[in-house]
Amino acid sequence: MQLGLSVSDSDVSSFTPLVVLELADDTKAEAITWLLNRIRDKQKIGGAELLVDQLLFPAQDGQKSNPNVFVVGSTLQRLLKGAEDVGLFKEFQDGIMRGFTYANRESFKDFYGDGEGFLSDAECQYIIKHELDTLRAKNEEHVPGYPKVKLYPGKSVVRRLQSKGVLVQYFPLHNKEDLKRLSFSWYKKIKLSFQPLDDIRHYFGEGLALYFGFLEYFTFALVPMALIGIPYYLFDWEDYDKYVLFAVFNLVWSTVFLEVWKRCSATFAYGWGTLSRKKAFEEPRAGFHGALGFNPITGREEPVYPSSKRQLRIYLVSVPFVLLCLYLSFYVMMVYFDMENWAISVYNENPNFGTGILLFVPSIIYAVVIEIMNLLYRYAAEFLTNWENHRLESSFQNHLVLKVLVSLATLLITSQILNQVMEAFLPYWLQRRRNKKVHKRMRRVMGDKELPLLEQVQLETEMNTYLGTFDDYLEQFLLFGYVSLFSCVYPLAAVLVVLNNITEVYSDAFKMCHVFKRPFSEPAANIGVWQLAFETMSIIAVVTNCALIGLSSQVKAYFPESETQMILIVVAIEHVLLAFKFILAFVIPDVPKDIQVKLAKLEFDSLEALKKRKILEAVET
Amino acid sequence: MQLGLSVSDSDVSSFTPLVVLELADDTKAEAITWLLNRIRDKQKIGGAELLVDQLLFPAQDGQKSNPNVFVVGSTLQRLLKGAEDVGLFKEFQDGIMRGFTYANRESFKDFYGDGEGFLSDAECQYIIKHELDTLRAKNEEHVPGYPKVKLYPGKSVVRRLQSKGVLVQYFPLHNKEDLKRLSFSWYKKIKLSFQPLDDIRHYFGEGLALYFGFLEYFTFALVPMALIGIPYYLFDWEDYDKYVLFAVFNLVWSTVFLEVWKRCSATFAYGWGTLSRKKAFEEPRAGFHGALGFNPITGREEPVYPSSKRQLRIYLVSVPFVLLCLYLSFYVMMVYFDMENWAISVYNENPNFGTGILLFVPSIIYAVVIEIMNLLYRYAAEFLTNWENHRLESSFQNHLVLKVLVSLATLLITSQILNQVMEAFLPYWLQRRRNKKVHKRMRRVMGDKELPLLEQVQLETEMNTYLGTFDDYLEQFLLFGYVSLFSCVYPLAAVLVVLNNITEVYSDAFKMCHVFKRPFSEPAANIGVWQLAFETMSIIAVVTNCALIGLSSQVKAYFPESETQMILIVVAIEHVLLAFKFILAFVIPDVPKDIQVKLAKLEFDSLEALKKRKILEAVET
Repeated sequence: MQLGLSVSDSDVSSFTPLVVLELADDTKAEAITWLLNRIRDKQKIGGAELLVDQLLFPAQDGQKSNPNVFVVGSTLQRLLKGAEDVGLFKEFQDGIMRGFTYANRESFKDFYGDGEGFLSDAECQYIIKHELDTLRAKNEEHVPGYPKVKLYPGKSVVRRLQSKGVLVQYFPLHNKEDLKRLSFSWYKKIKLSFQPLDDIRHYFGEGLALYFGFLEYFTFALVPMALIGIPYYLFDWEDYDKYVLFAVFNLVWSTVFLEVWKRCSATFAYGWGTLSRKKAFEEPRAGFHGALGFNPITGREEPVYPSSKRQLRIYLVSVPFVLLCLYLSFYVMMVYFDMENWAISVYNENPNFGTGILLFVPSIIYAVVIEIMNLLYRYAAEFLTNWENHRLESSFQNHLVLKVLVSLATLLITSQILNQVMEAFLPYWLQRRRNKKVHKRMRRVMGDKELPLLEQVQLETEMNTYLGTFDDYLEQFLLFGYVSLFSCVYPLAAVLVVLNNITEVYSDAFKMCHVFKRPFSEPAANIGVWQLAFETMSIIAVVTNCALIGLSSQVKAYFPESETQMILIVVAIEHVLLAFKFILAFVIPDVPKDIQVKLAKLEFDSLEALKKRKILEAVET
Repeated sequence: MQLGLSVSDSDVSSFTPLVVLELADDTKAEAITWLLNRIRDKQKIGGAELLVDQLLFPAQDGQKSNPNVFVVGSTLQRLLKGAEDVGLFKEFQDGIMRGFTYANRESFKDFYGDGEGFLSDAECQYIIKHELDTLRAKNEEHVPGYPKVKLYPGKSVVRRLQSKGVLVQYFPLHNKEDLKRLSFSWYKKIKLSFQPLDDIRHYFGEGLALYFGFLEYFTFALVPMALIGIPYYLFDWEDYDKYVLFAVFNLVWSTVFLEVWKRCSATFAYGWGTLSRKKAFEEPRAGFHGALGFNPITGREEPVYPSSKRQLRIYLVSVPFVLLCLYLSFYVMMVYFDMENWAISVYNENPNFGTGILLFVPSIIYAVVIEIMNLLYRYAAEFLTNWENHRLESSFQNHLVLKVLVSLATLLITSQILNQVMEAFLPYWLQRRRNKKVHKRMRRVMGDKELPLLEQVQLETEMNTYLGTFDDYLEQFLLFGYVSLFSCVYPLAAVLVVLNNITEVYSDAFKMCHVFKRPFSEPAANIGVWQLAFETMSIIAVVTNCALIGLSSQVKAYFPESETQMILIVVAIEHVLLAFKFILAFVIPDVPKDIQVKLAKLEFDSLEALKKRKILEAVET
């Protein structure tokens, strides 16, 4: 943790502010007192044992600022103990990643003196978020001053306050000094180099670092495709043999690329300590609810929710709902086709300007309806996934992404891909423009000079919230779709995607550093369900590529007599390619050998330690 | 360990003999003395610390028996310490499977008094085998008395003696009392019941118990198929809709069946303690060789062999060799077709008795050539797999099975299935008859009366060696092939397989108990690469079933105009079915929830214990 700016320019006591809490400006005083006490209370009596202070803004331009803005910080000791609570893995003296323990802190590599700089900024903020999220109600029946905001033992206080609108938002503060250093090494340099992934992870956490790692890897992996694509485009890409060769290369490349990414991601995640962190040992996510009980694995007290109930909710409600939505979207599409046929027939009967405009009406109506349906669907998907009550943030995310991708699949299948691009890119561009405006205003206000804390908090409070990596991955997914589905028809696709991604890295980096609020770090060991999505896409690509080859006139010319024979041969080739793909995925190990050895060593040491411990216990009793 | 018969009827000291060692009858005396000393030496000075005694047979019928037959036993304490060395998992007081430790033995469930009966017979013999196998050369340059039988530090003594023919064989002894009890509860009862899998595992070890568990599971799983197949056979199985329905049911059934088996097998293996035993922590198999070094995970001293070298051997030698053999067998088949065409043309030109016989000649030659090639191939496969120098017995087995199955696949694909059945069944039946003869002779000699140890050892020495579960699984695999590939053409297949398997259980049980030498226990956590083989078969079944449906005249009648359209629809249905299959396999978790929780709990406890241990270590230094 770098000691950047500190609460020194106001009248509050001096500590490094890490997280901002904003309560509604009409919050009752007794609720505020109660909340602050709970945050400051010792852990022994169920508090979070954190430091918290109020920020009082002077009135500006006649507008009264919200008085209920608080900054949260922590002592170094509390943070180190929190690191043990959340189960961070750090590199030990012997080079193995081990679960951090406060008692043994001095045996960890990079721990010097009192441990300053041992935890990254993102980790400190993650720990504070975790401590705030797990601040659970004790015997209070409701929030003081709000008889209607009910509580029960074990309910997350912060969650309840947030859902009732008392807590407006809480977010981590930027650290101007670190940010300046990061942005310089990240996107302000002009010379070509790899991204500083370790620094990104240090500042933004593992989830985002993995996204940028993937973006870079994906772009580099596309370069051979792009290089091969250019001569195909320039010269004789109508030649049949080279055509098939290109498709086969395409297939092998996409399989190898995805498998090797798993290994890269495992290497990153091991070094960052997230690969060893076992999902089941993690604390439940804040939105998870249930009767207070004991976790069967860790023995800790926490909400418990039977997984059979969750399964029932998934299979009896969510799956039928998603299928219904799929059916509905097909139905709407059919109606659209009917309307279009009708419009065309009207135009053909009486071609004039009015009926000419009529030709566009079905498409416009369809686009609007689809946009509304998509919005509703995404809202419903989020509600349902939340209602399924997943214990872990990662499985919540995976189920949400799966739901959205399924609806996307319909649209892709029904050849609405180009439409879809516009739907995905247009709002993105619009937002980018809006963000630029915000950014400009901020630059005017902030400049590059060191800002006093009060102003910084006020500005960051107004910034947009970054909603997670979903849209960024989605964009990469669609780009991957073009390259793998259509590159043998349009070999320049890879070139365009490479060019797009080069600018993408810079714009995404800029966006993270200056346009959005700083997001909380999300520990991630892999890219989650996106890996599955990319792999599924590459399987579909085999099918479509074979079909495209079968449809091409050159191939048909080879089998002038029998269309049946041609189809059978294409299908046979497709099956061989699919089989080859599965064998390739099976043969390449997901985790590099040296990481496997390190993980196994940790496991072996643990089991040995457990044996010795059980012996000691037996001796003692 | 049950104290069955003991070495009391001869002049040797009294201990329970567990394993028989037979040396060549011309072995030099100094070699024998040296070997026995190494077996008896304390572990501290590199011995196995086991009990061993010579059996002296009186001359019978004028024939002099081999004098160099030894029985090996052990003290209970040594066995318990050995159980810790091999890493057995046993149920702890709290119901969790934990690594057994001698120091903490009394905290394990079912450990009473001095621990008699805590280890099963199979486990005791497995431990002794392991201790004998890991008896490694120290500074000896060669075996005493045999200057040509070279040794180097770390080389397994037993292995070297066996490969040089000095050690003829070593095998575990039957325990007449336990065997009688087992065979009564297993196959001598007439009433229908499940097999006593726990007793089988107790007597023969986990590998065989899993095979019999699989056999039973497979048979029960076929019952619904058989029940549905009967009406199809009796009534209107020519009806198109029902035809497709049957194929779809077939597909879903085979997927669900294989996925659920994984869960069953995980449940068995957890209860038997083999699921928690991590492969990487296991001691290397006896045939594994390399320079003596340190295992990077356990830190133990053992032979080390770089996996990159193994990869090179696999991909540069084994894979090309297998592919070459595949090509060769295709080539031979082509020659066979040519010969057959030639024979038919000769017969057509001049049909008489001589040319009539000529018709059979190509088939006979082909069958003989294939049989010889198969034999050579299997020998080569075993040699190559051995040469690849796999560290673990399980990975050795998996690579061997894969090689043999690949060659089998060619034969299956090239529609030689019926031939193959005869090749697989005929030798099997022949062997069964021979076994029966051996068995009869033994029954005559042994009767049911208690035999003195000398005679028992002599009889068991002459029995056939059981070569592992390969052929048994292969038979089930082929049966599964018929059911899944052809049941929609011949719906009675499942019925016949069920009938076959009911007798199979009894004949296999009898064979294990009375026809073969008792095999050493092989700890197995699953059925290994056979799971993959069955799953691959069920994928191929989707393809063939769809093709068969497409070929049927009923379906063709549906699309009288366009054959192309029919093929495209069948291909589309096939893709949907395959996708459905993969989704199903993905959705069903491989390990039941409660076992997952128990495994995770063990892991969590271990990590916690490791943390505490590291703290203690830091305090001490």
